[in-house]
Amino acid sequence: MEKYLKKITQNGRVLYLAYDHGLEHGPRDFNETTLDPNYILDLALKGRTTGIILQGGLAQEYYYKSKYQSRLPLILKINGKTNLYQTKNPYSAVTYDILDAKKIGASAIGYTLYLGSAFEAKMMEEFSRLRFKAHQLNMAAILWVYPRGEFIADETSEEVTAYAGRVGLELGADMIKIKYCGSENGFRKAVKAAGKTKVVLSGGPKTESEDFLATVKSVMKAGAIGAAVGRNIWQSKEPEKALLAIREIIFGNL
Amino acid sequence: MEKYLKKITQNGRVLYLAYDHGLEHGPRDFNETTLDPNYILDLALKGRTTGIILQGGLAQEYYYKSKYQSRLPLILKINGKTNLYQTKNPYSAVTYDILDAKKIGASAIGYTLYLGSAFEAKMMEEFSRLRFKAHQLNMAAILWVYPRGEFIADETSEEVTAYAGRVGLELGADMIKIKYCGSENGFRKAVKAAGKTKVVLSGGPKTESEDFLATVKSVMKAGAIGAAVGRNIWQSKEPEKALLAIREIIFGNL
Amino acid sequence: MEKYLKKITQNGRVLYLAYDHGLEHGPRDFNETTLDPNYILDLALKGRTTGIILQGGLAQEYYYKSKYQSRLPLILKINGKTNLYQTKNPYSAVTYDILDAKKIGASAIGYTLYLGSAFEAKMMEEFSRLRFKAHQLNMAAILWVYPRGEFIADETSEEVTAYAGRVGLELGADMIKIKYCGSENGFRKAVKAAGKTKVVLSGGPKTESEDFLATVKSVMKAGAIGAAVGRNIWQSKEPEKALLAIREIIFGNL
Amino acid sequence: MEKYLKKITQNGRVLYLAYDHGLEHGPRDFNETTLDPNYILDLALKGRTTGIILQGGLAQEYYYKSKYQSRLPLILKINGKTNLYQTKNPYSAVTYDILDAKKIGASAIGYTLYLGSAFEAKMMEEFSRLRFKAHQLNMAAILWVYPRGEFIADETSEEVTAYAGRVGLELGADMIKIKYCGSENGFRKAVKAAGKTKVVLSGGPKTESEDFLATVKSVMKAGAIGAAVGRNIWQSKEPEKALLAIREIIFGNL
Amino acid sequence: MEKYLKKITQNGRVLYLAYDHGLEHGPRDFNETTLDPNYILDLALKGRTTGIILQGGLAQEYYYKSKYQSRLPLILKINGKTNLYQTKNPYSAVTYDILDAKKIGASAIGYTLYLGSAFEAKMMEEFSRLRFKAHQLNMAAILWVYPRGEFIADETSEEVTAYAGRVGLELGADMIKIKYCGSENGFRKAVKAAGKTKVVLSGGPKTESEDFLATVKSVMKAGAIGAAVGRNIWQSKEPEKALLAIREIIFGNL
Repeated sequence: MEKYLKKITQNGRVLYLAYDHGLEHGPRDFNETTLDPNYILDLALKGRTTGIILQGGLAQEYYYKSKYQSRLPLILKINGKTNLYQTKNPYSAVTYDILDAKKIGASAIGYTLYLGSAFEAKMMEEFSRLRFKAHQLNMAAILWVYPRGEFIADETSEEVTAYAGRVGLELGADMIKIKYCGSENGFRKAVKAAGKTKVVLSGGPKTESEDFLATVKSVMKAGAIGAAVGRNIWQSKEPEKALLAIREIIFGNL
Repeated sequence: MEKYLKKITQNGRVLYLAYDHGLEHGPRDFNETTLDPNYILDLALKGRTTGIILQGGLAQEYYYKSKYQSRLPLILKINGKTNLYQTKNPYSAVTYDILDAKKIGASAIGYTLYLGSAFEAKMMEEFSRLRFKAHQLNMAAILWVYPRGEFIADETSEEVTAYAGRVGLELGADMIKIKYCGSENGFRKAVKAAGKTKVVLSGGPKTESEDFLATVKSVMKAGAIGAAVGRNIWQSKEPEKALLAIREIIFGNL
Repeated sequence: MEKYLKKITQNGRVLYLAYDHGLEHGPRDFNETTLDPNYILDLALKGRTTGIILQGGLAQEYYYKSKYQSRLPLILKINGKTNLYQTKNPYSAVTYDILDAKKIGASAIGYTLYLGSAFEAKMMEEFSRLRFKAHQLNMAAILWVYPRGEFIADETSEEVTAYAGRVGLELGADMIKIKYCGSENGFRKAVKAAGKTKVVLSGGPKTESEDFLATVKSVMKAGAIGAAVGRNIWQSKEPEKALLAIREIIFGNL
Repeated sequence: MEKYLKKITQNGRVLYLAYDHGLEHGPRDFNETTLDPNYILDLALKGRTTGIILQGGLAQEYYYKSKYQSRLPLILKINGKTNLYQTKNPYSAVTYDILDAKKIGASAIGYTLYLGSAFEAKMMEEFSRLRFKAHQLNMAAILWVYPRGEFIADETSEEVTAYAGRVGLELGADMIKIKYCGSENGFRKAVKAAGKTKVVLSGGPKTESEDFLATVKSVMKAGAIGAAVGRNIWQSKEPEKALLAIREIIFGNL
Repeated sequence: MEKYLKKITQNGRVLYLAYDHGLEHGPRDFNETTLDPNYILDLALKGRTTGIILQGGLAQEYYYKSKYQSRLPLILKINGKTNLYQTKNPYSAVTYDILDAKKIGASAIGYTLYLGSAFEAKMMEEFSRLRFKAHQLNMAAILWVYPRGEFIADETSEEVTAYAGRVGLELGADMIKIKYCGSENGFRKAVKAAGKTKVVLSGGPKTESEDFLATVKSVMKAGAIGAAVGRNIWQSKEPEKALLAIREIIFGNL
């Protein structure tokens, strides 16, 4: 795994700015400023993030051959869905060709796996294929492991979060992005379950700044290597400052 | 995106005549005159449109190697369905081979994505594949983004229209064709959400001429680059005049 | 289209003998005489038809390398189903390899599309693929367009028949085989809707001879180029005479 | 068809010993003796059968490179299912690679088609593909045509049996294995419907010896070329004698 | 079969340590010690097992190029599922590429087949394909045959266990891993039904040590060649001792 992570880590730590919400939730997450991909790319640079997460179409138009390409690693989110179809058993469609992902400069692909969905098997098989191709192309394969399905009562319980961590390792993900389970100790279990697979916090919806910083501190203590943030940043009043505050926690004096 | 749009734009603006209704609705949309593809192709020329939208079978018989081929760009509608099967979760089948689309002179392909349908994922994956092939063949990939599904209460609400716009960008469409949401301001949001993806108005069923012209004015002010029209044209009393009136709005003195 | 139709038309007209009922309905449509494919092939010759319609297995055993091969064009029916599974949304399975269809002497393939079935999309996509392969192999692609599905109240209404005609053109069929809608005028609409796609009457179950001849006259006046007949012929007392009577109507003194 | 049947017929007649029950019904059909494939292979030789019917795994371990390979033709049953999942619409899975079937010495493949099942189309398409590959590899393609589905009231009625016979011909099977419909006359209709496709009786569960011999006589008079037997043999007290008695009926003094 | 089993048997006997529970059940089966793959690999060596069973991702990170690779054969479990989606008709997804399984040092692949599930056919077809590829790559193909489905009342009845054994042989598995049916005599029937396919006991959940040792003795007497153990080992107080005790039963003074 190590060799695939070189481009998307700094001293073994990460801070990613995620910006794939346009497909997942529609533009309602954005205001006039944050609707603009260039603003976000700029913010990612200024906030000293270690990577930007984009869907393929957007990456191709705003990142590829832009000034950002040489300065900001790209994690291309290779599957996705809208929230317009409601189901207890979600499936996320592959939206971009992996050879083209490489061509437009991706250092990693990101794939969402809804663990516990009726379509879990289909997504597992797709991730398996994409992971191998990614490695052949020298890109990392990051798994967003999100427990979601008709039999999952609590998507962020400690037990289910530790399960998500372990699945990342069993499936050979280089890195996983998982949600906070509410306690440092619980998250530590997930990190341990994930073994050599690196664990990154999934930011989630906007929360109070102090609360979120506390969460980041907690997951770092628990063994995570960083966080992927989005709404907590651009929906805050001072996004750049918010990023730098998080960076301070993650990287300290590294 | 720009490079793929050269053949199907004029000064960055477009006016397309759509004529794929035979598959989507059957011939009931036509009268004896408009049933004839040659009449429509002729009208597209006389009305100074910037492209004609046809299903593959029809394009092959009436456009390919005809006098129109060199004078009128072809947007080949590469998927479709009839209205004979009723469902809240529509799917649109691929009807033509993309290599043959190129062979018979298409400058772009058009693909309908029913956003929010239970088959959204399947259509997203198909568009992803067709878009790449289209670009390899130097054809533009245009997405008809139509929100339609069992959980979509209002298919032309501002929110859902903006979502449609954003999905076009996230999926890397060169251009999208979307419906009017009822207000200039709402449409502007969709155009902004679409970013570098060009936005074209989808004409829809016949309305009063003045009403439709007002809609075209509104979307142009909102940032659209033109319109794809059909029933509003051939179901009007003076189709050529109707086209030219719309062209005047879109192109002005360009 | 013209070039693919040379082998299966005479002076632009056709009279086909269809004999794929063994798969569609079982042998109950046959008596001891008509059960024998050789009898039918002989009848097709004597009745001066312009082609025989057979499923692949039967064509291979009775037509390929027989005396009929050089004297009677073969339209190989490339999909089919039994009537043993009852459903409002039928699907017809591909039963023969298209390369082998060419090898055993087919001049055309025939494909049934149940328009309005829940499986309409799947059949449209299959026809699209088979049509291209057929053309590459210099075979015509004939579409049996049969509206049938849970939302179709009247499978032979004028409106639905015209829709069937148009779909043949939109999908690029060289020829379509459709059912009579009960009036010459209605059928004319379907023929016009089909444009350059040639229209052939689908014979259907046995009717009174005079009635059927009247139907053939009606569709010829309406612009059809001929008929595909089956049960009306072999279930009649004098099959050869019956064929020649129909031929007289279709070809007149051509 | 003839050329593919050379290896698996003797003077145009057949007597096969079927032994695929282990997959279809589990070992409950066997006793300690008949559980052993070597016993059965030996029995097939001693009983002077013209072929043995085995699933691929069993053929590979007990037939391939054994003393039986040169003395007993192999019909490799290439699909199958257990009886542990109950459904009115059965489907039979492909269990062996057809290239390997050739490699381990198969002279024919056997494929079960559940006519009238909701999965009829899928099985028809699979048989179509396997039949072509079998012929390319110079193996015969035998179809077990078993009417079974939620709308089939009587799986062995004369009508449905004749339908089964005809489907074998229409789909191009070299030989079919069908069940007895209860009367010689009815079976004759099925044989006639099958035309050039050879018809073989499917033995079915154990019956009284005399009754079964009468059935074999009946189908031979009706035009069948032999029988495939199983439980009627190994579940009898004197299996070898039982085989030879059936052979006497089928081959007489040939 | 023999030739594929050389690397994963010793004197024809086996004792495997299974450690794929992280995917199947989540980390709740582990404590802090057993959560660590290195601990388990070490234990497998110390306990003198003849192979370790791992999912691909875990094998790649902890086994491939490790000190264990040359000392401990790897059985790569190539499919799996979580327990987060509940269904009476389970399906197990392919999680790793078989070429990569070979590359990272697997001597065999393990595949779970839920016999009697509505997805039985899909899994049978997948196993068939994987088995052939495995043999081409000189790896053994081991089938976990687990009867499970909506119509299976008792998953470990003698009858169903014997059926599982036979299916392993019919499908050509080199070895099967099945559960204990409660009696030596019943297990003997399964072993006999499996013929040349080797039978290994599937350990199951933690039981009293003495009970489990008695079960191992029973299956060895019944003709099994060994056992695959997991929870009975690492959940015991003295895992290494527990392994050696089982080894003593299986290998005796071999």
